[in-house]
Amino acid sequence: MNDNEVTLSNDRAWHSAITLADGEHIWLRGYEVTDLMTHATFAEVVLLLHQGELPSPGVQKLMNALLIASAECRVDARSALAARAAASGNRRGLEAAIAAGVLAIGDAHGGAGAPCLEMIAHAVARVQRESIPLEQAAAQIITEAKTAGQRLPGLGLRAQTTDPRVATLFRLAAEARVAGDGIAFMRALERQAREHIAYLPINLDGAIAAILYDLGFAPAFAKALYIIAHVAGLSAHVLEEYAREQPLRIKIPVEYDGPKPRAVPRS
Amino acid sequence: MNDNEVTLSNDRAWHSAITLADGEHIWLRGYEVTDLMTHATFAEVVLLLHQGELPSPGVQKLMNALLIASAECRVDARSALAARAAASGNRRGLEAAIAAGVLAIGDAHGGAGAPCLEMIAHAVARVQRESIPLEQAAAQIITEAKTAGQRLPGLGLRAQTTDPRVATLFRLAAEARVAGDGIAFMRALERQAREHIAYLPINLDGAIAAILYDLGFAPAFAKALYIIAHVAGLSAHVLEEYAREQPLRIKIPVEYDGPKPRAVPRS
Amino acid sequence: MNDNEVTLSNDRAWHSAITLADGEHIWLRGYEVTDLMTHATFAEVVLLLHQGELPSPGVQKLMNALLIASAECRVDARSALAARAAASGNRRGLEAAIAAGVLAIGDAHGGAGAPCLEMIAHAVARVQRESIPLEQAAAQIITEAKTAGQRLPGLGLRAQTTDPRVATLFRLAAEARVAGDGIAFMRALERQAREHIAYLPINLDGAIAAILYDLGFAPAFAKALYIIAHVAGLSAHVLEEYAREQPLRIKIPVEYDGPKPRAVPRS
Amino acid sequence: MNDNEVTLSNDRAWHSAITLADGEHIWLRGYEVTDLMTHATFAEVVLLLHQGELPSPGVQKLMNALLIASAECRVDARSALAARAAASGNRRGLEAAIAAGVLAIGDAHGGAGAPCLEMIAHAVARVQRESIPLEQAAAQIITEAKTAGQRLPGLGLRAQTTDPRVATLFRLAAEARVAGDGIAFMRALERQAREHIAYLPINLDGAIAAILYDLGFAPAFAKALYIIAHVAGLSAHVLEEYAREQPLRIKIPVEYDGPKPRAVPRS
Repeated sequence: MNDNEVTLSNDRAWHSAITLADGEHIWLRGYEVTDLMTHATFAEVVLLLHQGELPSPGVQKLMNALLIASAECRVDARSALAARAAASGNRRGLEAAIAAGVLAIGDAHGGAGAPCLEMIAHAVARVQRESIPLEQAAAQIITEAKTAGQRLPGLGLRAQTTDPRVATLFRLAAEARVAGDGIAFMRALERQAREHIAYLPINLDGAIAAILYDLGFAPAFAKALYIIAHVAGLSAHVLEEYAREQPLRIKIPVEYDGPKPRAVPRS
Repeated sequence: MNDNEVTLSNDRAWHSAITLADGEHIWLRGYEVTDLMTHATFAEVVLLLHQGELPSPGVQKLMNALLIASAECRVDARSALAARAAASGNRRGLEAAIAAGVLAIGDAHGGAGAPCLEMIAHAVARVQRESIPLEQAAAQIITEAKTAGQRLPGLGLRAQTTDPRVATLFRLAAEARVAGDGIAFMRALERQAREHIAYLPINLDGAIAAILYDLGFAPAFAKALYIIAHVAGLSAHVLEEYAREQPLRIKIPVEYDGPKPRAVPRS
Repeated sequence: MNDNEVTLSNDRAWHSAITLADGEHIWLRGYEVTDLMTHATFAEVVLLLHQGELPSPGVQKLMNALLIASAECRVDARSALAARAAASGNRRGLEAAIAAGVLAIGDAHGGAGAPCLEMIAHAVARVQRESIPLEQAAAQIITEAKTAGQRLPGLGLRAQTTDPRVATLFRLAAEARVAGDGIAFMRALERQAREHIAYLPINLDGAIAAILYDLGFAPAFAKALYIIAHVAGLSAHVLEEYAREQPLRIKIPVEYDGPKPRAVPRS
Repeated sequence: MNDNEVTLSNDRAWHSAITLADGEHIWLRGYEVTDLMTHATFAEVVLLLHQGELPSPGVQKLMNALLIASAECRVDARSALAARAAASGNRRGLEAAIAAGVLAIGDAHGGAGAPCLEMIAHAVARVQRESIPLEQAAAQIITEAKTAGQRLPGLGLRAQTTDPRVATLFRLAAEARVAGDGIAFMRALERQAREHIAYLPINLDGAIAAILYDLGFAPAFAKALYIIAHVAGLSAHVLEEYAREQPLRIKIPVEYDGPKPRAVPRS
């Protein structure tokens, strides 16, 4: 026991429903960690930590697929670039380089999942409130987005082909018997977009949002899932950078277009 | 020269107006760095880097005051707590602990400056568009915020006394002859709030936003300024943690309120 | 295609052995991602990303257990504290709060795995070079550590009971038929420590290091594995903080022991 | 006052010598913050926060120069690259992008200052212990580094010309009458390196370390100073990235050299 320890007064304890431990046991959401280690996969534990319950075997398989799909990280993704740039300057800080990669995950990279999930929740609520078919709700949202000049989260890829992960995820969701309004709505949205805008296929963010909606998750988990899985890819990139590259390897041609040389005025 | 270097093709160079260097000189926004080192203060260089020009002597003094005001960082601020918690686990990662502190700066800590600056810009635009006095624009914004149940950025302190830094900043802005619509509007807003809501004194975020508006800055710089200055306080906290505390000193009483112990179902 | 894109010249491409993609397929280490999503677990993909090959079924089970063991994160761990402090100030920056938690993982928290793995590699090399039994190599290392007054990585817990995860991991390693010199050495070290110093049970870092050595991993992966798994726990804490707590809830009594109030000298 | 607040028991308060505040005043190291805002520069406050005392006017000027020298940040520095990559994916997270840049500061970028300061302290201690001239201590260290095949921190530039900032810093140190053993030793080391190895001019890290030694700083402050100043340059880069570039502009040609496409074995 460290003499420097600070103890908070007991009457104002923090409350948490995640972990409990005594000298001999550790429980995660009520399950002994050794029991989970013996009988569960990490994917199930990710679900348990965030949703409070262990999933069915089908959902377990789906959750593994969601994590594998999000672990993929190409060298030229901005998260990998940030992580490798940090690793190149900070050769002993694995945690720092991985964190730098995580910090590139935001509204323009890996961040469409949460707004897409919000859009789905909004659309399904409208369907129920106004007793209209999903297809009509999708058409309304397409019209509103066109009018407002806004992009639709979850649709569209840089190269307008399909992402192979989307069909696999939807197939596994069907096999796990969890495909519901989320997937149905995203498919309706894709159809309506093709009719009224262009062929904008459901992208990975959109597929994940659809499935997480059908699994009962709140929007914030979409980004959490992406970060959890993506850290595995970022870690592989940082360790490859350490193993294969020297510190100073990146040279970018920069054209300076600022003010011409001038003298500091003497005050 | 490192053999592993990667060179980008010259036709697609990055463009930047910040720094230029040849083998013997380094220029920041056109000024030689050695010239700046001899004749300028760091505060002026912060302004130069972000606005492109060196300030007048009065604004230089004001800029130093803005940075000093934002450097202050109490032990129990969330940024200091995040930095010290990280330092306690990562005793050789000064950059990691400081970065952890920076990451606590957001909408609920040090983040009111940018929305406050946006509110000021919006109000001044309304004054010009509708040819109404600032006081009336302030009254309208108070009414709108009351109706919408929204908090006003830049007003209010936890303990409802005044922050001593606000008056000093406004005095230095007057002495630098830059006090303009930004400060006038925030004072009008404080008066109107007192009349229609409660005594909500201008806080540090509000004073900084007012002055940065009067100096011609875009909203994003409000958070940038706070981060730049605050890093000095965070660094002092991390080095104090390393020097005075042992790694494991934080003990928080936690009340677990999650599920009771249960067995993992065998599949 | 974005007009602003910068393309590096092809003769100096970056090289990477992790991911390959064309318009219709994505491969991780040669396996199609959709194939992995259908037939593998995330734990296997973590192994694949870092070691280049998919594991046997027994090792897959072991890898899941290693990840689950490392996902556990108590509220009062410094990583959780850093993450929750950042979350309390930065309520819309999930990636920032998780990164702050990752940055607390260092030499004094989750960081004993890599030096423990190095110690094991060093000891096994000595066994082979000097043709001595593992037990003798362990005894020598104990003596050297006592003489140098150094702590042994991988041994010892704050409360000197056993960590329940250690036995489970060693059992699963035996069932996967990968228990080798790594586990044997750590057990010898624990025995020799008990005889010559005190009862210092193998801790989680030590068990993970032993198993990763037996799986053929380099030391750096020990910290990588901990970070990858721990991010799942950190994410659950940040989302719980967002869902259950208000921004400003942390108050720490601070005793100031610096200089008394004094006036700034006028220059 | 927030109902959720947690209060630590008073008997185990944290201790800190940095900041004190009551409802009406804020003191930094004993000085009222408003007094500092009116009569000091930010550079002096950085010194005050880290060393506990305000400097003389000459040292104030020197400290401004040290900060300006370290604020410089070229587009192709790894810290700027990490920050801009993060900014490109996370367009609303200024704090995240700046933190990503800070995380690239490590042993291979901006990190030579602390080991250089340690080397100086070690050399000066040897001079005093063995009553030898500084020149001889420098020669010994050169010989030891050659024998061990180690690089000397603080010497050498990528392009072997001189860094213009070094002479300016040494001149300002002389003018502030603080040039002492630190600067004298680094100059002796440069001379001895030129005689026994090659022309390895003192670089910025070496000049900063020499001056910080002469100012009485501990090694850790060398990295702290660099981070504090560099954040100003990083911030300018991130805001330029937001203002001038679109999210997806970085394309790097990657040559994949990993395993050929293969099928996942069915278990």
